[in-house]
Amino acid sequence: MKIAVVSPISWRTPPRKYGPWEQVASNIAEGLIESGHDVTLFATRDSITKGKLEYVCPRGYSEDSELDPKVEECLHISHLMEQSSKFDLIHNNFDFLPLTYSGLIKTPMVTTIHGFSSQKILPVYKKYNPIGNYVSISDSNRSLELDYVATVYNGINTGEFTFQAQPKDYLLYFGRIHPDKGTYESIQIAKQSGRKLIISGLIQDQGYFENKIEPYLNEKDVVYVGNSGPVERDKLLGEAVALLHPIGFEEPFGLSVVESMLCGTPVIAFNKGSMPELILDGKTGFLVNSIPEAVESINKIKFIDRKFCREYASEKFSRQKMIEGYLEVYRKVLKAKK
Amino acid sequence: MKIAVVSPISWRTPPRKYGPWEQVASNIAEGLIESGHDVTLFATRDSITKGKLEYVCPRGYSEDSELDPKVEECLHISHLMEQSSKFDLIHNNFDFLPLTYSGLIKTPMVTTIHGFSSQKILPVYKKYNPIGNYVSISDSNRSLELDYVATVYNGINTGEFTFQAQPKDYLLYFGRIHPDKGTYESIQIAKQSGRKLIISGLIQDQGYFENKIEPYLNEKDVVYVGNSGPVERDKLLGEAVALLHPIGFEEPFGLSVVESMLCGTPVIAFNKGSMPELILDGKTGFLVNSIPEAVESINKIKFIDRKFCREYASEKFSRQKMIEGYLEVYRKVLKAKK
Repeated sequence: MKIAVVSPISWRTPPRKYGPWEQVASNIAEGLIESGHDVTLFATRDSITKGKLEYVCPRGYSEDSELDPKVEECLHISHLMEQSSKFDLIHNNFDFLPLTYSGLIKTPMVTTIHGFSSQKILPVYKKYNPIGNYVSISDSNRSLELDYVATVYNGINTGEFTFQAQPKDYLLYFGRIHPDKGTYESIQIAKQSGRKLIISGLIQDQGYFENKIEPYLNEKDVVYVGNSGPVERDKLLGEAVALLHPIGFEEPFGLSVVESMLCGTPVIAFNKGSMPELILDGKTGFLVNSIPEAVESINKIKFIDRKFCREYASEKFSRQKMIEGYLEVYRKVLKAKK
Repeated sequence: MKIAVVSPISWRTPPRKYGPWEQVASNIAEGLIESGHDVTLFATRDSITKGKLEYVCPRGYSEDSELDPKVEECLHISHLMEQSSKFDLIHNNFDFLPLTYSGLIKTPMVTTIHGFSSQKILPVYKKYNPIGNYVSISDSNRSLELDYVATVYNGINTGEFTFQAQPKDYLLYFGRIHPDKGTYESIQIAKQSGRKLIISGLIQDQGYFENKIEPYLNEKDVVYVGNSGPVERDKLLGEAVALLHPIGFEEPFGLSVVESMLCGTPVIAFNKGSMPELILDGKTGFLVNSIPEAVESINKIKFIDRKFCREYASEKFSRQKMIEGYLEVYRKVLKAKK
């Protein structure tokens, strides 16, 4: 099958550090290539793929403030659309903008909805619902106003995450520094349980960081290590007693949650969004509803079998599993077109 | 001829007050209708036309902060593009985004470049140069990197501007409150010439207004009257001794400059951008290079024949003249297509 995989261009594909949509688009492209498909990745010029690379934008616009996102985005998308007839299928991981070109081309397009940044973008998805072939990344993230071909969980290259049977003594927060992600709550949980906390992530909300996070930071028990790349991420996740994930929003998926389990590290998460679909409560972590519940669950963390966390995540969220899911979606869509 | 005229959706078409691109798009649509053409205006739902109106966006997104500009814009454009085959020609007044869809449709598109908001948008125009059929609104605004079918000056419905033989005693600043437009310089010119200044316009740069303009305002000799609609505009322009237009940028066109001359009011402008194409120096105003030169020219304003200003502007910048220009462009483009 000749497939065009469209990645966002906020970051390189795969991202150097942060960039979850680019990461998943990369996993899809490389997984399809491994399965023998003819894949063209539409991403930034500095992106890396074993397939063909098509680009307009030199770098991610979040990595170069000289670039105008609106200009780069529409040129990126039109570059794909103008050669759409070369492909059997387009797999859009970009968000809503490509949908508005999709009525002008003949090649069917599958769109993975990686999340709704706001309810304001829903009208685009509603308009293109009849031809959108939407895929949700968790059942919880589905909009009742849209039709979906399937839910396909994000799949991860399990080889990039090393199982660690014996952790060190710290708790880990891993993600954007933003109220949605619960950085502040993680600090409270760590403090109340008398444990060290390591914080890793991109500062997305500067005011939040300065007011709610920075005052707690030191070199001893609440340590901020910045934004981490793949190697550091593997080590940080693997050596943690548990990953704290006390989110304040209905998170569509949590890549770090799955990555943590792949390293054998259980996850203590607020029970919101996709968390019950990702974590087996009491088996690969704990689903809790408050800071005290989270603190309590830390006392039970020793009963979690780290090996089982790895096995569970490898089985359910592998790249291969995701590719099987998408190939089934592609077959359905191509069959419906005939 | 069946023509789709595409307007921006920042404001209603025509705008209630500020909204120059929407104003010109309206003038084009209504002028074409008057010439007997079958026109569909793509604009906001509350827009007004004697032709057919097509819309997605309920209101201008600058008039309703609940609207997401990116969402509204791409839905607005795709709504047009998906029915492009109904038209002989599309006349794009929207800026660069429609160009990125134009390679996917068969109907030829003419794009009036109403200005380059930044050099960063030039790559889009360069990519679509072979099919863009670009029109400049002044010779001065042409990019050397692009090809143009013609320059067509913006045309105005002369009936909306009343000739005033005898002005009152004030100088007028009419335009966005922004450093580019020279609000501050206008105050200095008025003060140094001992004349009253009336300022009308949308506050586009709040910091500039608070720091550089507001300290001078009073109810006597530097009076700010807010943003003006058509009726007040006609009166303000007509009763002024002169319009001050000491711009700080290469302005592609100055609607208020032409509107002022239509009322018989001469214009004192800094000699930049399109100004020498709009103003006959010494005849319909003065092209100057500094505040002292502007002050000096006010002493000569009594020698300007207000009737000639009206005649000159009516001849050169009428809606009819603009429509003739565009019809020639359309014919060229349609002929080249065959």
